[in-house]
Amino acid sequence: MTTPVIRVGVIGAGFVGSALLDLLLDPSRRDALEDAATASIEVVAVAVRDLTKLRPGIPSALLTDDAAALASSTDLDVLVEVAGGLEPTRTYIESALARGVSVVTANKALMAERGTALARLGHQHGADLFYEAAVGGAVPILRALRTSLAGERIERVMGIVNGTTNFILTQMTEQGSDYHAALAEAQARGYAEADPTADVEGYDAASKVLILASLAFGTELRDEQISRVGISGIRAVDVEFARRSGYVIKLLGVAERVGEHGLSRRVHPAMVPVGHPLAAVHGAMNAVFVEGAVSGPLMWLGQGAGGAPTATAVLGDVLDAVRNRVSGRHDVPFMVDDTLHRVPAGDLTSVFYLSLDVADQPGVLAAVASVFGRHRVSIQSMEQSGVGDEARLSFVTHRALTRDVDATIDELATLESVDSIGACVRVIDGGDQ
Amino acid sequence: MTTPVIRVGVIGAGFVGSALLDLLLDPSRRDALEDAATASIEVVAVAVRDLTKLRPGIPSALLTDDAAALASSTDLDVLVEVAGGLEPTRTYIESALARGVSVVTANKALMAERGTALARLGHQHGADLFYEAAVGGAVPILRALRTSLAGERIERVMGIVNGTTNFILTQMTEQGSDYHAALAEAQARGYAEADPTADVEGYDAASKVLILASLAFGTELRDEQISRVGISGIRAVDVEFARRSGYVIKLLGVAERVGEHGLSRRVHPAMVPVGHPLAAVHGAMNAVFVEGAVSGPLMWLGQGAGGAPTATAVLGDVLDAVRNRVSGRHDVPFMVDDTLHRVPAGDLTSVFYLSLDVADQPGVLAAVASVFGRHRVSIQSMEQSGVGDEARLSFVTHRALTRDVDATIDELATLESVDSIGACVRVIDGGDQ
Repeated sequence: MTTPVIRVGVIGAGFVGSALLDLLLDPSRRDALEDAATASIEVVAVAVRDLTKLRPGIPSALLTDDAAALASSTDLDVLVEVAGGLEPTRTYIESALARGVSVVTANKALMAERGTALARLGHQHGADLFYEAAVGGAVPILRALRTSLAGERIERVMGIVNGTTNFILTQMTEQGSDYHAALAEAQARGYAEADPTADVEGYDAASKVLILASLAFGTELRDEQISRVGISGIRAVDVEFARRSGYVIKLLGVAERVGEHGLSRRVHPAMVPVGHPLAAVHGAMNAVFVEGAVSGPLMWLGQGAGGAPTATAVLGDVLDAVRNRVSGRHDVPFMVDDTLHRVPAGDLTSVFYLSLDVADQPGVLAAVASVFGRHRVSIQSMEQSGVGDEARLSFVTHRALTRDVDATIDELATLESVDSIGACVRVIDGGDQ
Repeated sequence: MTTPVIRVGVIGAGFVGSALLDLLLDPSRRDALEDAATASIEVVAVAVRDLTKLRPGIPSALLTDDAAALASSTDLDVLVEVAGGLEPTRTYIESALARGVSVVTANKALMAERGTALARLGHQHGADLFYEAAVGGAVPILRALRTSLAGERIERVMGIVNGTTNFILTQMTEQGSDYHAALAEAQARGYAEADPTADVEGYDAASKVLILASLAFGTELRDEQISRVGISGIRAVDVEFARRSGYVIKLLGVAERVGEHGLSRRVHPAMVPVGHPLAAVHGAMNAVFVEGAVSGPLMWLGQGAGGAPTATAVLGDVLDAVRNRVSGRHDVPFMVDDTLHRVPAGDLTSVFYLSLDVADQPGVLAAVASVFGRHRVSIQSMEQSGVGDEARLSFVTHRALTRDVDATIDELATLESVDSIGACVRVIDGGDQ
């Protein structure tokens, strides 16, 4: 029996692309790859922006700067896109799928914005669209949702899906650093960008929540905004309060059913009980915690970023796409569940932790407490720390409507005795929504 | 396009079987299952031992007590075996595979003993053999090894793959219980059998290590024994010593490369650093920690037992088998790597924790220390606890050959001043083998 040859093109040779090419071109891995792929994988071209740049390990004969030509080649079985960006990347991917070429991509922004339409286009033309590396780096959670959990009714997905913020929060927890010092450390180590907004304000996590939700619940991947709170308001005292109370603060991306046909998707910091598996996810690691109606809790953990770990996720997809190509089939894209409606974050209840910087003067607590009362938010416990200009009040509420807590915060911000609102952090407990 | 119909037979309607049938026969899940399966799944028969037993939820027309006839039926696409046992189960599975019927089983003992031969038989006849539920209950680790990690070079797999022992050790850690009280509690809750040997002495974990190793490293599944130490020697003082030192004691199943072509497979208790993801696996949960050469560390966590969670793993396999059947293909079984040789546990080095009950009298420590020295085992730290009849010495060694530590223990047992050898626990650190 002759081994079939599957032709693969790659767009992008940055950290992920070059790590992937190391794996695909390594002669010592050739036999194992061929076994796993049930085919011989031939890399036919690598499209890069700058042909003059030195690229050790990539034969120069493979290099091209014409990504558009590669994407529209008919002599290709699988196109790997690890260049990133929305355009012209989307055009390249559409071009390949429309010719029946399967696509493997790591592009979370593009998938979050256009995933469903692109998957349908591929399906029409008998091509696969896989994007395991778009969520959780090396963590193979998307394939698990597509396959192992395909028959499960999933109730909730909670992920630590941004390594930068998890590194910052871990530094704050373990070193007692304040937010700015931890962010600077993350930048010094290359975990955070010079402009860290996409990470620390939760935009990156929000894209990943959209992708997880689409596979877990059947929502459509089209350009959508979800409720999003980042970690820039978290201070050392909040982390310390959490620690003393048996919690760790994590930035969570959450997607969950609410009632029979409701779905909430959101990103926010949360106090996670120390005994919860997500509490043990340290540093730049990522993890996704899934609650199935029948399976119970499941968790996947691994490196959320880095060229080589991410490349293994891309490689897993390439092998899937190659095997499908060899057997002349493609995966049917996940179904969209039209019956689901979006539940606004304000409609959900939770226990909240809230901290305020206040003027240390008589009557402050009474003024603050009356605002809570006016919005039907009942206080479970209160703690004052610091004195004078540094005075700070920390509250833990009873279970309350998010909308009411938001209104409380808005009104508290208008009080003269309140200098600033610090963190507002959901406390995860058994009945949490 | 008409939806293909795939005919499924089930042998066994115990906890797992009846939970699976709940999932397959639930009318509210029918559409979602059909989407996931790309086919309509028709359960054609359920073979049970006792036809007179009441089985709510299973239409009596489906019941039969002739498992042999079901297994040899030619009018079947997929056979699910959740009855357990080695014989006649093996005969049933062979019979189905030889007729090209795909088989899904939860039978870890049979897979550990015969997996490779059965998978080859299926391959010859175009049938799949899947057994996700044989390891880790609901945790979909085997599919991840088969697919997501197919292109990865795996260096080490470490699993908490026995929920009974993890429950016992968690009780000892969290409640300070001694071993016998924790075992009794596990028995009272139905986590441990009246005769707990298979769990507490590591036989169950050993079967799972064999299965994990076959997928991670390409070893053959044939009747093999591996190095195995259980938890019955662990006492409250050992758990307490671990806690004070920043560790948690876990029963680990380990499979790892040693050098280029060596492989070690073993089961033993180990001190896991509290910051390690495996340390956060509590109670009856299972987890498998995988170190890939490129991916870095990955972990899967979930419920290791229970009818419903285990049934979700079986269902994932059924869906895979059905989809394959619809597209007229089957998965190629994992390759056997003939170049691997077995490295005896004695050849490996580790840091060890060792505890001894001794007579509290002058000269004991000198006598004991000289035994360590004679066998080239260097002591990193020593601690004495208790007095008189309760005196106990706890040692942590420097990195030492397991063979030398075993010889040390053998000689220590002959000393008159040593009443008994307590626990011998490997300490997991960065360089651990």
